[in-house]
Amino acid sequence: MENLRVVLVGPRNPLNIGAVARAMSNFGALHLRVVTPYEKAYREAKSAVGAAAVLQKAEEYDSVAEAIADCTLVVGTTAIGNREIKQPLRTLLEAGPEIRQRMAGGAVAILFGSEKWGLSNESLSHCHWLMHIPTRKEHYSMNLGQAVAVSLWELRRIGESNLKDTEVGVGRKKAAKIATVEMITEVMLDVLRKSGYVSPRGQSLAEEKLRRMLRRFDLHAADAEVFLGMMRKIAWKMERAEKL
Amino acid sequence: MENLRVVLVGPRNPLNIGAVARAMSNFGALHLRVVTPYEKAYREAKSAVGAAAVLQKAEEYDSVAEAIADCTLVVGTTAIGNREIKQPLRTLLEAGPEIRQRMAGGAVAILFGSEKWGLSNESLSHCHWLMHIPTRKEHYSMNLGQAVAVSLWELRRIGESNLKDTEVGVGRKKAAKIATVEMITEVMLDVLRKSGYVSPRGQSLAEEKLRRMLRRFDLHAADAEVFLGMMRKIAWKMERAEKL
Repeated sequence: MENLRVVLVGPRNPLNIGAVARAMSNFGALHLRVVTPYEKAYREAKSAVGAAAVLQKAEEYDSVAEAIADCTLVVGTTAIGNREIKQPLRTLLEAGPEIRQRMAGGAVAILFGSEKWGLSNESLSHCHWLMHIPTRKEHYSMNLGQAVAVSLWELRRIGESNLKDTEVGVGRKKAAKIATVEMITEVMLDVLRKSGYVSPRGQSLAEEKLRRMLRRFDLHAADAEVFLGMMRKIAWKMERAEKL
Repeated sequence: MENLRVVLVGPRNPLNIGAVARAMSNFGALHLRVVTPYEKAYREAKSAVGAAAVLQKAEEYDSVAEAIADCTLVVGTTAIGNREIKQPLRTLLEAGPEIRQRMAGGAVAILFGSEKWGLSNESLSHCHWLMHIPTRKEHYSMNLGQAVAVSLWELRRIGESNLKDTEVGVGRKKAAKIATVEMITEVMLDVLRKSGYVSPRGQSLAEEKLRRMLRRFDLHAADAEVFLGMMRKIAWKMERAEKL
């Protein structure tokens, strides 16, 4: 579990933050990252009696992009509900083996949103794909700490019982770091703006769409570097053309 | 899950009682039994806003014996810790299939003890055997709601896995036609030439590399159309710039 990062985005309830840290400690997932938590809740959780060491060592970030920069796979979680899902979606059962396999080759982040609203579309756009825990449709929304506990249990279970069919990392090339993919996103957005493909008004929507698309490409590390180089060159050329 | 009884013995914390009921409701285990709860905690849990219907319908008992009278299998849970275990002990992984099988033939009870002390030896003595969720030895004690959530997830998983483990749910999106990918290759090569990324001499090698790279992207049909549109727009813009 050394390569797993549990990322809480905008958590609001100190008890839930504590419960997440406890489940992580139980199951040996020791790397917690927290993005823009409600400050009071976060301080309260940290100072609670018996707060897990996991919480003491948690890293705080100002944005999802920063929190996942060193990861090679980013998985978002969703209860679905009435939400329109625009990305590939897997159940925890389907997701487990793939996450486990990718953990053998680099850092993997699983994002959990706030108790109230889940992950925003902006946060989701940073994810390669989404995962959900199948629940009754009459009561689909899970408690945050329980969702983390169940997810970690499942990852551990697979690690211990099903090594046979996960074939750790066989045949798979090294995946690109998400920081590189994000750089591609930015440069490409710039190029699309310059070309008129993206209008100034539609920009934030276009950014999310582009971000999701580039994650679906699931780039290898070497390809990502090449692709970034191409886009930079194009951007440079267009820049120069604009000045003439 | 109709034949499952979740039995809380002497729970002390209203939030935990509520969390147990919520996990049960999520996973379709609707029969909660409570033995000698701390009255105040129990009343508080029941009256909480958003308390699950499971909790409203919970049955209260004065003794473990009464709570399990109609069950054909009784399983106790324990974190082990420093406890001397005098009964057969199974991990959740080992216990799941047996519990599931017995649920097909009659009511099965799983007992969970109080947050502080777990099940007493007297309570344990009512059990056919004991079950524990494997955790790190440095932090073995689980939160009550999380322990219930993980146990129920595992029972559901086993029930569904025979049907669903093989059947890959959402499945893969439609892949792009190779003709479209080839068009992308051509337009992109043109853009790279115009930008100076590709020199006239190195062109055929660059074309092969680009072609291989774009195939590795393994594009979905819809993404390929969007991507092609982007590249065409960029090409058009550069064309125009060259003419100025």
